[in-house]
Amino acid sequence: MINVGIVGSTGYGGCELVRFLSTHPNVNIEWVSSRTYSDQEYSDVYKSYFTLLDQKCVDEDIEKYLDHVDVVFFATPQGVCAKMVNENVLKKVKVIDLSADYRIKDVETYESWYGIKHASPEFIQEAVYGLCEINREDVKKARLVANPGCYPTCSILSIYPLAKAGLIDMDTLIIDAKSGTSGAGRGAKVQNLYCEVNESIKAYGVASHRHTPEIEEQLGYASSSKVLLNFTPHLIPMNRGILITAYAKLKEGVSEEEVKKAYDIYKDEYFVRVLKEGNVPEVRNVKCSNFVDVAYKVDPRTHRVIMMGAMDNLVKGAAGQAIQNMNIMFGLDEKTGLMLAPAVL
Amino acid sequence: MINVGIVGSTGYGGCELVRFLSTHPNVNIEWVSSRTYSDQEYSDVYKSYFTLLDQKCVDEDIEKYLDHVDVVFFATPQGVCAKMVNENVLKKVKVIDLSADYRIKDVETYESWYGIKHASPEFIQEAVYGLCEINREDVKKARLVANPGCYPTCSILSIYPLAKAGLIDMDTLIIDAKSGTSGAGRGAKVQNLYCEVNESIKAYGVASHRHTPEIEEQLGYASSSKVLLNFTPHLIPMNRGILITAYAKLKEGVSEEEVKKAYDIYKDEYFVRVLKEGNVPEVRNVKCSNFVDVAYKVDPRTHRVIMMGAMDNLVKGAAGQAIQNMNIMFGLDEKTGLMLAPAVL
Amino acid sequence: MINVGIVGSTGYGGCELVRFLSTHPNVNIEWVSSRTYSDQEYSDVYKSYFTLLDQKCVDEDIEKYLDHVDVVFFATPQGVCAKMVNENVLKKVKVIDLSADYRIKDVETYESWYGIKHASPEFIQEAVYGLCEINREDVKKARLVANPGCYPTCSILSIYPLAKAGLIDMDTLIIDAKSGTSGAGRGAKVQNLYCEVNESIKAYGVASHRHTPEIEEQLGYASSSKVLLNFTPHLIPMNRGILITAYAKLKEGVSEEEVKKAYDIYKDEYFVRVLKEGNVPEVRNVKCSNFVDVAYKVDPRTHRVIMMGAMDNLVKGAAGQAIQNMNIMFGLDEKTGLMLAPAVL
Amino acid sequence: MINVGIVGSTGYGGCELVRFLSTHPNVNIEWVSSRTYSDQEYSDVYKSYFTLLDQKCVDEDIEKYLDHVDVVFFATPQGVCAKMVNENVLKKVKVIDLSADYRIKDVETYESWYGIKHASPEFIQEAVYGLCEINREDVKKARLVANPGCYPTCSILSIYPLAKAGLIDMDTLIIDAKSGTSGAGRGAKVQNLYCEVNESIKAYGVASHRHTPEIEEQLGYASSSKVLLNFTPHLIPMNRGILITAYAKLKEGVSEEEVKKAYDIYKDEYFVRVLKEGNVPEVRNVKCSNFVDVAYKVDPRTHRVIMMGAMDNLVKGAAGQAIQNMNIMFGLDEKTGLMLAPAVL
Repeated sequence: MINVGIVGSTGYGGCELVRFLSTHPNVNIEWVSSRTYSDQEYSDVYKSYFTLLDQKCVDEDIEKYLDHVDVVFFATPQGVCAKMVNENVLKKVKVIDLSADYRIKDVETYESWYGIKHASPEFIQEAVYGLCEINREDVKKARLVANPGCYPTCSILSIYPLAKAGLIDMDTLIIDAKSGTSGAGRGAKVQNLYCEVNESIKAYGVASHRHTPEIEEQLGYASSSKVLLNFTPHLIPMNRGILITAYAKLKEGVSEEEVKKAYDIYKDEYFVRVLKEGNVPEVRNVKCSNFVDVAYKVDPRTHRVIMMGAMDNLVKGAAGQAIQNMNIMFGLDEKTGLMLAPAVL
Repeated sequence: MINVGIVGSTGYGGCELVRFLSTHPNVNIEWVSSRTYSDQEYSDVYKSYFTLLDQKCVDEDIEKYLDHVDVVFFATPQGVCAKMVNENVLKKVKVIDLSADYRIKDVETYESWYGIKHASPEFIQEAVYGLCEINREDVKKARLVANPGCYPTCSILSIYPLAKAGLIDMDTLIIDAKSGTSGAGRGAKVQNLYCEVNESIKAYGVASHRHTPEIEEQLGYASSSKVLLNFTPHLIPMNRGILITAYAKLKEGVSEEEVKKAYDIYKDEYFVRVLKEGNVPEVRNVKCSNFVDVAYKVDPRTHRVIMMGAMDNLVKGAAGQAIQNMNIMFGLDEKTGLMLAPAVL
Repeated sequence: MINVGIVGSTGYGGCELVRFLSTHPNVNIEWVSSRTYSDQEYSDVYKSYFTLLDQKCVDEDIEKYLDHVDVVFFATPQGVCAKMVNENVLKKVKVIDLSADYRIKDVETYESWYGIKHASPEFIQEAVYGLCEINREDVKKARLVANPGCYPTCSILSIYPLAKAGLIDMDTLIIDAKSGTSGAGRGAKVQNLYCEVNESIKAYGVASHRHTPEIEEQLGYASSSKVLLNFTPHLIPMNRGILITAYAKLKEGVSEEEVKKAYDIYKDEYFVRVLKEGNVPEVRNVKCSNFVDVAYKVDPRTHRVIMMGAMDNLVKGAAGQAIQNMNIMFGLDEKTGLMLAPAVL
Repeated sequence: MINVGIVGSTGYGGCELVRFLSTHPNVNIEWVSSRTYSDQEYSDVYKSYFTLLDQKCVDEDIEKYLDHVDVVFFATPQGVCAKMVNENVLKKVKVIDLSADYRIKDVETYESWYGIKHASPEFIQEAVYGLCEINREDVKKARLVANPGCYPTCSILSIYPLAKAGLIDMDTLIIDAKSGTSGAGRGAKVQNLYCEVNESIKAYGVASHRHTPEIEEQLGYASSSKVLLNFTPHLIPMNRGILITAYAKLKEGVSEEEVKKAYDIYKDEYFVRVLKEGNVPEVRNVKCSNFVDVAYKVDPRTHRVIMMGAMDNLVKGAAGQAIQNMNIMFGLDEKTGLMLAPAVL
């Protein structure tokens, strides 16, 4: 049994972690912590867990609770994990951070986009960017995993094959993203009320969203180049799911056949499904599952390729991928506890 | 391994059966059949199953396909199962019928409310009404299980304790029910289009819904009386879930304490959760799970009790309960393959 | 021109008042006030009014702003209007209160259900309960109108004909109500976030909702009896609209014909539509309009009548009825500014 | 009074035409026609019109009904209007076609994208493309107006200022569009059922949507160049509304100041609102109104401009703009009957 602790367990990401971990065959949830609800029953915060998780939330003075756990998940706001991680912690437990603290290798980029001082930059290089399909080997040996952002996971996995194969002009890359509202978190804000989100759509963070440098860095590694792109997220009236639609010019002379072949890179991946020709990713086809559905369409009129990806932001975009990382770190089959068929309805 | 066949696999109930059975540890889906999509890939009908279920739908000439299966699920329109079941079939396989064909013991009541002639009334008495929590012992020995309707499951389980204990005046019973739109099925009808359902509510089948006699019959058994009640379903703009709110006069002198004690009947049931005082059932707390959450509130002003229940119509109201029945019939732990925490988001 | 002021203009009710009044041919919006957003542009609070309403919100020290207005609307939380109204105010302006402060004639009932001390009980008797179709003559002469609650408007108008005609047993009356989420207001509460409301339903205020005594009082007047009933509201994942489904025993010997005749009481009413037999009220058929659609169904099996009503909670249930009252008070055609066809989509 | 006839009145576009025209102060609806519902009460098809429109639908043999009308709206599938229009018709009435038949000047382009033979190409040149803000003067004199498509209206109005001013590189133009489900029409198709659309998003018509050549042609006129672009529409779980997000490289040396100045072209337009800096278009801010909200954001990192527009697809994208065109053709103030504040809720 892997004993786990979950910091920030009462946000939406934390809630989804609890959901998957509570039925994971190799896991025991040792404790859940919460700043806001400490000392309250978890099943009073989320009544769906009534009879299922009979624990009180502990406070966030985490070091007190490390002795009986093997791994700690941080589903916390930016900056929290960076403050809590130190050599002592990493000697005791493995850490999987669902926040952005260790995702970006260049600390100045992090500090300028996130507007906070990084509290433990000395661990950034050691941290492994936990996009399992790409960095699986490094994850195996990691003490500290930076679980990728939701938009970056879906964007990178959709674009990676063509970036890696050098088939697209990276200067022309545009990512138009759409996300369900759980991505906005559980904070009590007027803008996230039912009546403010329902029957509407809007872009937000236009030309300024924090996931931009994360995507740029990873696609930069893939394409061995410095990448600057436009990334525009939109808020959609649904609970879960992300769809990304990306556009780029194919390099001169690149054929549809080459594009097709590049996506074969995923042929042994369980969680990335390259759709059959003529199909497009739909959020409902991956909902509540750890799958990412990707597809592409070459437009001969404009010699652009449209790359599409759909994913559940709370699963492969957060809790599911975190568990996939845990499975890899502890030598389990990476699909353990994640073998759910999508809830199409 | 239990080898299963699913008739009517491409409706919403069938789709949910496939979802749960495809990850059930003791089940092999031998075939799925469909009238509309026969000879087409199941994963072309529901693209969420791409890479997960690599089978073509067979036609509905079921007798051809019985040799290699242990149990057949019918998720078909009224009348289909009754036509297909015969002694030969029941000798070969166990049958779990998700339609209404064998639910009502009085064939005249069935024929008058459903407007069709029953094709095999000789099996009605043998069929076990598969409300697991109430008829578990009979289900164990059954060849033919009539899986309860969605509204009846939620209504009966919410009211049963007080009906059984004789605490309410059955003549005063009123059930006001609300259901998500998947209950309306997958037929291509204008009235079920997104824009016709969204941002609206309406009652339907007022004083004439077919689930009325099913509820009346079962609550009649519980209360040892003939029950006539009002049942009004409403269509709600959401995919899944049922909420029922039921009203009855408490018999004279009945105390809140007695009401509370009556619900202890569920104290050993895993899938029925009697909520703590002050809590009310919410659909999201049971979504995608096999739980039924029930609660009651005594109103001293009117000496009525309000009984409430929430359930996922596709799980405990259809596929989940069918699998719970299968587990019982085959001697498995009845929770096998159904241990999912609700997807509160 | 009628010069109006709106107190509490930035809540959802206030927003809807502004919407209708800004296009009312006989109205000039002189000022809008807001506790939370005072001194901010109204069109920064609701960006839909950009270019349409070029005013800053004033504070809520209303007496300063009475000289240039003819009528003041209060779309404020309970207790605010009662504190502000006094003889001086009523000498200067007419007051239409959308809160509950003057709806209930019995001050003890008000204070016990609302849990606050009434600040100006001396005006309760003078105040006219502004259910236009019933109290039109009194509204004409009123200085102070208590605009009915949303649930009471829909409930009373649906039940009134049978209560008035003495055809139902008032002791058996049960009202099961369903409301869109705008009824919960614009406060930043976790429970009203998109992801907490979407894809769910729940009852709330079971046997304790504050609209209960308001409905009981008015139906008491109609039936010349003391009425105690059960009223259960439910939260529905949609922005606007209320549906009520009410149940009562018909008195012995009452025929369907008599029921039908009782509803003729509305034959000259523009805003109350008694549907043709076989039709049921649907929220979408009245959305964004001032109509209330009502229907009934007699169940011969149980000798009950099911009474149904649909209405837009923000229009006939709040702003629209308030304007209808204003029109009556100022001698205009009561339909002025309210002649919108429902937005079925 | 302008007497109008509406062909195809029972689709969603037709329904919205009826809604606005039924309260237009200068209009009398002489007849409504329907292929599917001919000879049925309009208020049986859309029950929201009960008591409001007391007419039966006539058949679609329109020539019989021209004598008493001044203008005919066609809200019909592609090809219907082209078959019905001839010199005789145009001598009797003005025609406003909401379908695509006369939008594209190059008949071969029309025939190849729409896959049908044009039945009356001789009227294509005469037809005026009714994008009021751009072609107002031509509309005044028109007998035949081609009412623009929903996506084209929103896309063109958002991009037009920069295309016209020559500030963007037209070869880099990409339009990512999102639409509510009413855009898919009222046909009874499985893919448009509530449960298939809700809680999901998908792209459709990728690199092949028919609105592409319409946008290209109009932006070609604006920029005096041949335009080839990528246009990707997405289906969103909401009833109404379109949001477009467009991307283009600014030409070298173009400053943000010049971009800002280009949008001044709309300074006298009532229905196009250029948002204040820092604001983004949201569908709810224009819902149920004839407004188009547009905004832009210059990204100095990539030297791209992101152009955004929000609009109600059924109003400015269909019925509202058609009425705006009618108003212009008949010499009325173009805002007549369209002065509704957006229904933000």
